[in-house]
Amino acid sequence: MHELAENIAKQDIRALAKAITMVENDHPEKLSLLQDIFSLRNNAHFIGITGAPGAGKSSLVNRLIHHVRSQGWTIAVIAVDPTSPFSGGALLGDRIRMNQHFTDPGVFIRSMATRGSLGGLARATKDTLRICDAFGFDIVLVETVGVGQSELDIMKVADTTALVLTPNSGDVLQVFKAGIMEIADLFVINKADLPGVEKLRILLRDFIMMTNKERFVPPIITTVSTENKGIDDLWKQMENHKTYLAETNQGKEQRIRKLELEVKELIREEIWRDVDTYLTDSPVFLEQVDKPDADPYQLARNWYKDWKQEVMENGRK
Amino acid sequence: MHELAENIAKQDIRALAKAITMVENDHPEKLSLLQDIFSLRNNAHFIGITGAPGAGKSSLVNRLIHHVRSQGWTIAVIAVDPTSPFSGGALLGDRIRMNQHFTDPGVFIRSMATRGSLGGLARATKDTLRICDAFGFDIVLVETVGVGQSELDIMKVADTTALVLTPNSGDVLQVFKAGIMEIADLFVINKADLPGVEKLRILLRDFIMMTNKERFVPPIITTVSTENKGIDDLWKQMENHKTYLAETNQGKEQRIRKLELEVKELIREEIWRDVDTYLTDSPVFLEQVDKPDADPYQLARNWYKDWKQEVMENGRK
Repeated sequence: MHELAENIAKQDIRALAKAITMVENDHPEKLSLLQDIFSLRNNAHFIGITGAPGAGKSSLVNRLIHHVRSQGWTIAVIAVDPTSPFSGGALLGDRIRMNQHFTDPGVFIRSMATRGSLGGLARATKDTLRICDAFGFDIVLVETVGVGQSELDIMKVADTTALVLTPNSGDVLQVFKAGIMEIADLFVINKADLPGVEKLRILLRDFIMMTNKERFVPPIITTVSTENKGIDDLWKQMENHKTYLAETNQGKEQRIRKLELEVKELIREEIWRDVDTYLTDSPVFLEQVDKPDADPYQLARNWYKDWKQEVMENGRK
Repeated sequence: MHELAENIAKQDIRALAKAITMVENDHPEKLSLLQDIFSLRNNAHFIGITGAPGAGKSSLVNRLIHHVRSQGWTIAVIAVDPTSPFSGGALLGDRIRMNQHFTDPGVFIRSMATRGSLGGLARATKDTLRICDAFGFDIVLVETVGVGQSELDIMKVADTTALVLTPNSGDVLQVFKAGIMEIADLFVINKADLPGVEKLRILLRDFIMMTNKERFVPPIITTVSTENKGIDDLWKQMENHKTYLAETNQGKEQRIRKLELEVKELIREEIWRDVDTYLTDSPVFLEQVDKPDADPYQLARNWYKDWKQEVMENGRK
């Protein structure tokens, strides 16, 4: 067992932060560390919150933190933001939020930023959720900004996914297009003091009726996060969904399907690491790419053949 | 040479559509077809247009189609939309747009939708651009909705990337976060009849001054696409950028860097295809994932090792 994993199990907050940095930086020992961490899992409630920019997710999450703390639960919040792949960097907003809960050891807030690699952010986020689970937080919440493919991918790891919409914003069309509607277990109409709530509710109800009736029927919750309205109902519905998953076959099926996807993703990442190392060490590769008539499809085929050859030769040693 | 590639070179529009479907569905013969297609390349001007939802990209592209056609150029437009990974499906909006240019053989419009796999959409889009280039379109334009990681990835294939913003929309902050600012070769302030144009222009100018001075200085273009204003200037600036790339070292460097990324991506995809087949054929894999204590990190390591073992054994045969 890695010392870091042991310290996480002892609820050492510095070990937690260090482990997250390791997965973010794709540390060579990452996989074996995560294996240890996985063995320490506590099966926290994984909650995903997503929605278009400006839907008020951050303030909603802030209210939710206060609410679950008042009920005695501990909570880790991972805020995912596709910041610049060039600048990296932390987010001012999260620093401000962090301050509010700074003296409360039952709250951990961390923001994750893109490191440039395709799928890298989604992968690092999922690993971070696992690390927070091993630490012992009762609730591990991931909040994503935007509705791109990688956000969708992150949401797949959550047990309970809430989609936050606002009346009259046109968000619905965007999230429809992005395929977020189908993965939502709860719909939240935030800023419900604005006009258009009923129209949005009817649209959501129609959508719910259209979709598969054999799964959990997503409730529609109205909130005004700035006035702390509806937060208790939101939390009750989130717990409801957790109970539903535990009591029906759907929870088990969902877990297996997610695990299958995750194993495949991890293998893919391993492959990538191997190939990248193989190519980076080769001056011939750069030379070949540098030619004016270089054909990427031909090059890829040749290099893959060479890589396989190397695997075979290493096996013979 | 594939018959399909030969027919594309003969400008057979059905062959074009068929080849795109093949790359979308990840057909087994995809790579060898693309190799043939690559050999037929005409070096079209690859243009990328991106921006937040609602910035008016579609109508801007529509105006641009009319404009370049009036100059005698042919154009292919690939609209990328991260639609539902569950439903797939075509987009109503593009069908409407398609109708406008239906009788003009110098215009080809196609929308690409997510097929569920991470990075699959970006890959298929890049291959589609190549197919349109082989067909002989003078301009191949890709338009993306949203500012997620995969959109960013698609934009990297374009020679010239335009970022569309609107005054007072708050888009700037979102695209700043998404790292789109850094890849833009042109900034377009669309809906420039709205207030706030000057404020946005100053902000963009400051941003441009801050960034690397040794590369192309992105111009700021104001347009009102609904009134067909500024389209001629936009096109002129796009051609300017193409000339700049051709005349300086930056174009060559950009091409090599992109090719390097692309070859790596293709190799990764090839290996993944092989591993995926290996897993799919194995009932043991599903059985292992099905266990309540299944550890994804352990499973991934073991299966990848097993697959490599198989490569070695096949090599010995």
